[in-house]
Formats: sequence, structure tokens, C-alpha cells
Amino acid sequence: MNNLTNLSFEDVEIVGGFWKWRYDLNREVSLRAVYERFEESGRFDALRFNYRDGKEYPHIFYDSDTAKWIEAVGYLITRNGGYEEEQRIIDDLVTDMAKNQLPDGYLNSHYIQIEPYNRFTKRSDHELYCAGHLIEAAIAYDKATGKHDFLNIMKKYVDCIERYFVTEKLSKFSTCGHEEIEIALIKLFEYTGEKKYLDIALFFIDQRGVCGEAGIHPNLYTRKYDQSEIAVRDLTEAEGHSVRAVYLYTAMAEAGLKTGDKALLDACQRLWRDIVDRKMYVTGGIGSDPKGESFTVAYDLPCLDAYSESCAAIGFVFFALAMQKYELNPEYGAVIERIMYNGVLSSTSLDGKSFFYVNPLEIHLASVDKQTAIHPYERMGLPPRQRAEVFGCSCCPPNINRFFARIGDVFFSEYGSSLVINQYGSVTYDDGKNCVKMTTDYPNGGKILLEIEKCEYNEILLRIPEWCDEYSVKAEYTEKNGYISIPATEGKIEIDFKIEPYFVECNPLSRANNGRVALCRGPVVYCVERIDNDYELNALSVDTSATVVTGETKNEYGMRSLNVEAMLDSQFDSLYRKATSEREKVNLVFRPYWTFANREECDMLVWIRRK
Amino acid sequence: MNNLTNLSFEDVEIVGGFWKWRYDLNREVSLRAVYERFEESGRFDALRFNYRDGKEYPHIFYDSDTAKWIEAVGYLITRNGGYEEEQRIIDDLVTDMAKNQLPDGYLNSHYIQIEPYNRFTKRSDHELYCAGHLIEAAIAYDKATGKHDFLNIMKKYVDCIERYFVTEKLSKFSTCGHEEIEIALIKLFEYTGEKKYLDIALFFIDQRGVCGEAGIHPNLYTRKYDQSEIAVRDLTEAEGHSVRAVYLYTAMAEAGLKTGDKALLDACQRLWRDIVDRKMYVTGGIGSDPKGESFTVAYDLPCLDAYSESCAAIGFVFFALAMQKYELNPEYGAVIERIMYNGVLSSTSLDGKSFFYVNPLEIHLASVDKQTAIHPYERMGLPPRQRAEVFGCSCCPPNINRFFARIGDVFFSEYGSSLVINQYGSVTYDDGKNCVKMTTDYPNGGKILLEIEKCEYNEILLRIPEWCDEYSVKAEYTEKNGYISIPATEGKIEIDFKIEPYFVECNPLSRANNGRVALCRGPVVYCVERIDNDYELNALSVDTSATVVTGETKNEYGMRSLNVEAMLDSQFDSLYRKATSEREKVNLVFRPYWTFANREECDMLVWIRRK
Repeated sequence: MNNLTNLSFEDVEIVGGFWKWRYDLNREVSLRAVYERFEESGRFDALRFNYRDGKEYPHIFYDSDTAKWIEAVGYLITRNGGYEEEQRIIDDLVTDMAKNQLPDGYLNSHYIQIEPYNRFTKRSDHELYCAGHLIEAAIAYDKATGKHDFLNIMKKYVDCIERYFVTEKLSKFSTCGHEEIEIALIKLFEYTGEKKYLDIALFFIDQRGVCGEAGIHPNLYTRKYDQSEIAVRDLTEAEGHSVRAVYLYTAMAEAGLKTGDKALLDACQRLWRDIVDRKMYVTGGIGSDPKGESFTVAYDLPCLDAYSESCAAIGFVFFALAMQKYELNPEYGAVIERIMYNGVLSSTSLDGKSFFYVNPLEIHLASVDKQTAIHPYERMGLPPRQRAEVFGCSCCPPNINRFFARIGDVFFSEYGSSLVINQYGSVTYDDGKNCVKMTTDYPNGGKILLEIEKCEYNEILLRIPEWCDEYSVKAEYTEKNGYISIPATEGKIEIDFKIEPYFVECNPLSRANNGRVALCRGPVVYCVERIDNDYELNALSVDTSATVVTGETKNEYGMRSLNVEAMLDSQFDSLYRKATSEREKVNLVFRPYWTFANREECDMLVWIRRK
Repeated sequence: MNNLTNLSFEDVEIVGGFWKWRYDLNREVSLRAVYERFEESGRFDALRFNYRDGKEYPHIFYDSDTAKWIEAVGYLITRNGGYEEEQRIIDDLVTDMAKNQLPDGYLNSHYIQIEPYNRFTKRSDHELYCAGHLIEAAIAYDKATGKHDFLNIMKKYVDCIERYFVTEKLSKFSTCGHEEIEIALIKLFEYTGEKKYLDIALFFIDQRGVCGEAGIHPNLYTRKYDQSEIAVRDLTEAEGHSVRAVYLYTAMAEAGLKTGDKALLDACQRLWRDIVDRKMYVTGGIGSDPKGESFTVAYDLPCLDAYSESCAAIGFVFFALAMQKYELNPEYGAVIERIMYNGVLSSTSLDGKSFFYVNPLEIHLASVDKQTAIHPYERMGLPPRQRAEVFGCSCCPPNINRFFARIGDVFFSEYGSSLVINQYGSVTYDDGKNCVKMTTDYPNGGKILLEIEKCEYNEILLRIPEWCDEYSVKAEYTEKNGYISIPATEGKIEIDFKIEPYFVECNPLSRANNGRVALCRGPVVYCVERIDNDYELNALSVDTSATVVTGETKNEYGMRSLNVEAMLDSQFDSLYRKATSEREKVNLVFRPYWTFANREECDMLVWIRRK
């Protein structure tokens, strides 16, 4: 098997264009916004171990929220230096953690302060999930600053975990109710080279579904919910809570790569196919059921009731990045592109300060009224269809922080003597031996200028975007297996992927999307919002042969609107009438899906009825 | 105000055609089937007061189940005589009730046997609902047999209720959490002529929404759920649990008629408009939310997740029959016709033995799989999309028994010196002074033969069906306000309402039905079932100008299938692709909606996508 290496964000500078805007929004606004809300809500206090009676309890996964924010800071320091104030905050936290870590290494702000006698007794309580995020944070911070205290604390905690779960089996459960520790331990193995961390990761992966553990919500959900029903190598379908699922699949894929375990790899490929062929929203979002936050059945892709959690989209990118290492296959980059420009971007408001937990593909305010007509509408303490600055279960905002802090990861891979360009942006890869600059206003335009200043690779492979039917290369090139191959000689090369709007249809087995189309342009999925189109959005239909007029570029992030002539069903007063063919022509304005819900609260629709 | 009188089933003989088949199915099969299941499940034992520890508790509304069955037997005896075995069963029950009735008149099998200390303390526990159904049963049985014991028991119970709620106010609540007592007391007033029964009914109606009572499910639902939020005369929208709602509205309308209370009448008319213009399924079903079993918001008519309970459809006919008395207006008859031929008929299997609680407008088995993928599917202990012989909450089957036992009620009204024909069937009205025979194979055909053998009315008014654009009358006639007026002279008259298939569209504000049409023929709504059309039903679309071929009559109940050429979206393997216009022509077989789910479990769809 000829594997790839994904080239790290550490050597990738985001120099301009769309991703510079997005990267800076995260590091300049969102990072601070999340910090402030977490400080206000006691998440930092939890890890300072200054809980006192009468204050709100540290939530069982507050540690993970804070950890993901620290991890983001680590990546930003690694790439950009600075962040002195954040370092002071983190250093103080580390001091507090050191003081409060139990003698045997145990470290969890909730259990130590609230119910120390219960540690490692409740599968449902996210202890190892929190440990995993703290480990990832410690690695990032260690690498960024060279300060080893945090990582030493976490190594000591891992020793404790090993004793409780692996060697002495003192814990009351074998696998955490929420996966994450597995990914973290593999990263710790990669960072330290110590094989025991990989072994503990493999232990947790291998225990899953074979140790006879009860699901964490036996009355509400089946054991599939937290992947406790089936041994990992026997998995055939993506099932259960979708964040949990893709965190597990990521760890399985990474472990399979480290160990060469074919059965793990085969399972990952089956799971990948199941998601990509049957369970992925057109936005790259995953998880169809808001109640279970879970995958459901093939082709079940409800739009109004989509779950499609921001964390699930991020976890899906992790899984895709791991899969991308297995084999040279443009599909992995295509899926990452789909998620990046849609389901992940939509997570954050344009001002960078508020976030979606659930990313629906339709907003229909009358249906929100319906919910409130039956019982008070509650969804994670969130407003029905608007982003919020912080929520009770606020896992997504710091996940967004850490994701964009290392967005540089997605662009390049090494494949033998070839440099693979997976994604396009104005970024420079510079590892000292190689220096390759890309300049583009992708996804607004499809022109890519490659400047190869220094290159030890023999070949550059550019992934041909899945949506692209026509492209030109101003150089000698060959096309192979979905890639453009050019010799890696110094100089400039222009590639132009022709970007035009197009309509997409969904597999007709998808009940929600039957008879509907989504308008896209390049990798960007579009939507209509009622604020631009004051009609009942489901009363509109488009002819897929209609001319789509691309609007002018409007702003710093290169958003273009699209205009299409559509038909509006004629309105009438009665509830039913004999069918007529009365329709009215109207002009519809489409905007990129990821920019929705940034103005006033209004209806939104991705999948428009086709005429 | 010039009111109408609905002419009672007592003078209406169902002599042939569709309604004879349906009437006999109920009296010959369903009545016995319900009895047997209720005997097995302890419902009769509950009222025999032979509960012993260790047996299943009498359910809080078992009394109402048994009562509705007795009521049905009463109507059948009144119309047909006989039913000796049933009379023995009932007489024995009455003996047991008499023995166990408390000295102060209280009578409820659950409370007397299980928690006597709690009587009249829990609004949620249906005590007055059970009382109401027992009263209706007692009236029916008294009239049918001339045996007065049962009615005397109930009069004594009503005295107890009056004392507890009205005069001494000993109860812990003012209005029952489920309406029904109001209708029953008005009927008792009509039957006995004693005004105090009307006064108690008015007391309960007037208390509602003004006595400051908490809703019965304060955490789950708002106080709208059981109509405890708003005073009845201030109601503007049909809200809350839909059976409860229409039972209340029926009582309000009947009370308004008795008292001439304009404010009550106005409220009823607002509620009527809200349901008919905004909240009624094309099948006449009502209630859009299965969780709350409730009305939701205007135009919210989901098909897959319809609630549309059989009892709600029956209650809606009661409301319509009451409204029909207010004024000569063909709309009431049109709505009754819509419910009768669709949402009420669908409640029962073709063999008469099993029943729907919920009557969906779509079955999509993959979506049932979705539910089971998240948690074990449970819906009132019912199989996902099949009828059942008895259920935990088995209110519908005996309601169906009593409804069809007096289906004769719907056909005729008296309006001054006019005889109004509201519905069509092979029935004879014969009250001794008048004898009018109708012969028709309606709804299969639209020809009506009227034979007026004896008639003291001056005029006969025939409601022109809402769906009918063309008709002929072989006699002198005039058309006025939606009716055909003919002089009531002896002889034969032929009327022919031209029945052709037609497509119906729904108001475009209805998200569920946008871009879809329902095929109808006369009053009958049709559907497609996958057993006849093995396609993903939502991948089909029809052109509303397509020729609809009417199939041959097939069976004893005159069911005709309809055939339409439709388009099937082309199938492909991937989840998404650029939109094409590939379609395939297929022939679709439609059958009457009410006959669905009588063969093997399969997908079903009423609202088909329009091309």
C-alpha cells in the first residue's frame, strides 16, 4: 500500500484570498469571543479548580471546551508566534491543574471538585473525552511553546488511565461513552514516539462493541448510539451519534495506518462509502436526526430537521484527512472541499462571534411556530434558527477555533516523489527544501497561479475538482486518475478550472430532496433567503435549464450572488381547489449557503423545487 | 336565525349501495370484534367491578371504551331490533354498576376499585370524560330498550357531579382534562327535557379557560393542549389536542343552538373557519402533530407525520353536524362528505376487524426504519403503519362502532318546510308522514334516483357536491345557494352529478403539499400504494393534464381504481449529481385512500409531485 502524508499546517502560510479572511476572522475575533463567553460561563474557572458551593457546577465536559480553545491557541502560536496574553492564561491554568491533579495522576475538574468518589464509574460522563481533548491541547501547547508542564501533567494522567482501564481494570467501564481519547492517544504517540500510547488507543478501539457494555442511554437509544454494539472491524454502516462516530472512525483510520491493520482499513472504507454515498448532506454535513444527533438510515436527509452539527462536520474532515493518507484518490479532497465551503463555514456568523450547533438546510419559521404551539421550543438553549455566542453544550465554538487554526492542513500531501495539491487557496507551502506558492481567488474564480520557487518533488498533482467539467493548464500536463500531473520544475504555471453555476440533484431515494435541486457554483452550495425573496420559499420552482446570472463580487470574502428566473405558485385563499397551472415569474436571488442567517431571522431553503 | 333540524337515523333506513356495505360491516363484524378484544383486555371486567389485586388495573378511561360500545348497540337495536346477546351482556353490566355505584352516586370503575380516596382530584384522569360516555350510552340504551336502570344510575351520578362541581364545589378541579361531559349533558337534556342538565353542561363550558386551571401536562404542553387557557367565547383558533377540541366545539355549538348565545355561535364559526380554511387534511382528518395529538399552526399539514386520529375525524363530523343546524349552507355537508369518504373510512380495515388510531397521508417504510434506528419505535403500542385490533389507548374502535351505527344521521335535515338532502346514498327516509327513497351507487356513480312516495314538505333541497362542476336534473328545478331546489311532489326524479377524476392542489402556504397534487374522484381522495406501483413513490410526478383512466368496478363496495401515466425520476447510484432531465414513463395505479394498508405493509402516498 502506497500511503500519503498530509503536509502540516506548520509549513503552510495562508497569505491571502478567501482563506486569509477566514483564518484571520477565527484568530482575531472568534478566539477572543469564545474565550470571553467561556470565562463568563465558568469554563475556565472549572479548570482553575476554584469551584465553591453555590456556584454553578463545572459541567461534565467543561474541561474539553477549555482544552479545545487552548489547542487552538497552540496552533496559532506555532504558525504565527505571539498570543502572550493567552499564554499567561494557559500557564496559570496549567499551574492550577498541577496543583489539583490527584497523586495518582487523575485530572478532571468536575469529578475532583464535585463527586471524587465516582470517578471512572459512569460511561456517560465524558471523562476520557475530556482527557483526550486535554491531551490534544497539551501536545499543541508543548509544541508551540516548548513549555512541558502541561504535557507532563497529561502523561501522568495517561499513566493513571492506563492503570485504571488496561492494567489493573479498576474502572467501572471499558470504553468512554463519547469517543475522543483514541485520537488523542494516537497523536501523543506521534508526538512522543512512545508506543505505549498507541497501544492504549488500540485497547480502547478494540474494546468497543466487544466488551458487552450497555449503551449510555439504554432507554432512549439503542447501543448503536455510542458505538457500543458492534466490534469496530465488523462495522458496515455509519450509525449512532455522528460526532462520536466520526471521532471513532478517524481513530480507526489513523490506527490502521500506523499498524497496517487491513481489517480496520476495510471497515473504514465501508463506513466512508456509507456516509459519502448515502448519508451526507450536500453541504457535507452529517447526522440527520436532531433528537439522537445521529445518523439514521440511508438517504434520510431531512432539511428542516437536519442535525448536521458543526462538530460533526469538523470530525468528518478529520476522518477524510485520515482516509486521504491511505491512497491517492481525489474523492477525499472532494469531500473535504464540500464540507469546508459549506457545512463547516456555515457554523460561524460573518462577524465571527456566534455559532451554530445545528446547521439546517431549511428554515421555515412557521414550523418553528409549530413547535412552540405544542410545547416551549428548546434546543440546547439555542434560539430556534439563529447562531448564538455560547450554549449549554458549547462544544462547537472551540472546535471551530481549533479547526480553522490549522486549516493549513488541508492543502497539500506528499505521495512518494509527488506533491499533491488537494485544495486551492492563496497559500504558500515552504518547508525549507520546497517552496510552492499558490495564488487564486478560489472559490470565487477558478484561476490558480502556481509559482514553484524551490522543489525537490518530481511531480505536482493537482486534484481536479469534482464539479469541474472543463479546465485549462498553461503548461505541459497529463491527466491521471482525477489529477492534473505536471512536472515539478521551477517557474509559473496557470491552471483555470472553469467555474459556472450548476444545479445538483439528489439520489431519488432521498424523500426530502425528491423533485428538488440545489444551485451550486464551484464548491459552494447556494440557498435562497426570504429576506431577499419575500415568498413562501416552497411555493417556488426553478427550471434547471434557466439562465443563472452571476452577481458581482460584493465583499472581502468574495461572495457572489446568483440570480435565476423562477416560478411562484399562484396564491389562493381556500385550503384546497382543483389544480390549475397558474404560476407567476419571479426573480430569485441565491446566496452562498454558508452566509445564511446573518441578517434578520427569516426562512431559508437550499433544495428548491424543480419545475 | 332560521335553524335546521338534522333528521335522526331512527327514521333513516340504509337499504343498499355503499353505505349498506359499510353499515353492515360495522354491525356484523366490527361490533363483535371490538367486544371480543375489550373482553380479553379487561375493559368489560372493569365495569363489572371484579378487579382483584394482581390483575391489570382498570385503565382510567376503560369505562368510556365500554360505554361507546354500549352506545353503538343501543343505536343498532333502535334501528334494527335484536342484539339479544349484547343486551344480556349490558344488562348484567348495569346490574354490576348498580351494585357498585357509591351511595352518593359516584361511578367510575378505576377510582372506585383502585384509588377511591382520589376521586375528583385529578383533572388529567378523564373521570368526567368517562361519565359523559356512560351518559351517552345510557340514553342510547334507554331509548333502544325501554329499560331505565342504566339511565337512572347515570342520573344519580350526574346529581353527584352537580354537587361536587357546581353546588358544593368539593372537587379539586373545575373542568375535565378531556371534554365529553358537555356533549353528554346536552344530550341528556334533549332526552329528558330537564333543564338542569343543560345548565351543568353550560357550567362546564363556561368554566373553561376562566377558572385559572393549570393544563394537564404543564411540562410537556401549554394550557392550550386541553383548552384550559382561553374562555370559550374568546376562542379564535383551533388549538390543542384535536379530539378534545372538537368535542368542546360540538358542545359549544349545541349549547349555542339551545340558548341562542350569539357569542358562542360566533366563536364556533371562527373555529370552523380556522379548521376548514387552514387546518384540515384533504381527507377531512384533523390534528397535525402526533406527539401532542394536536392542532398546530395554519397550513401545517405533514403527511408522513400526520396525526389525524380516527376519533378526531369522528368528532369533527359531530361538530359539522351541529354547525349544519345553524344555517342552510352546503359547506357543512361538503366537509362531512370529505370526512365520511376518506378520514373516517380509512380508520377500519376492509374486513372490519382492525383499526387505525393515526391515519397518515403517507407511509414511507424507510422513515419508519429511521425511527427504529434511533430508538425502539413505539406509538400507542401500534405497529408502525398497520391497523390493529385493539390498542392500549383504544378509544377509536368503539367510537367507530357508534359512529357507523347512526350514520343515518348525516343524510337529511329539515329547514322550515324544506327537506334538505345533505348526503347521497341508497337510503330511505320514512317518518310515517314522509317517505322519500334515494337509490344510487354513489360515490361510485353520481346518478341519484329520488322516489317521493309521501311528502309533507314543500321543497326538496339537494346539496350540490363541492367537487361537482356539472349535473343534470330530469325535472323542473332551480339552483339556489349551492342547492338544487325541486318541488316536493310525489313521483320519481333523476339527478346526475357528473363524476370525473380531478386533481386537487393545496394552498401554497402548506409546506408539506407544495408542488404536489392529490387525485380525487367525486368525494373520494385517492392514493398510490407501492404494492401496485413498485417505485420510490416520491420519485414519481404527474402532469395534471394527463388522462386519468377509470378502472372497472371491482368489488362489493364499489371501489374503482384510477390509472394515470406518470414520470419516474431516473435512478442513479451516487448521492448527488449535476441535474439532468432524465425521466421514465410509468403507469400509476391509484386506489381510494380509505382502502390503503389492507394488503401487505408498503409505502403509500396521497400527495404526488406534479410535473
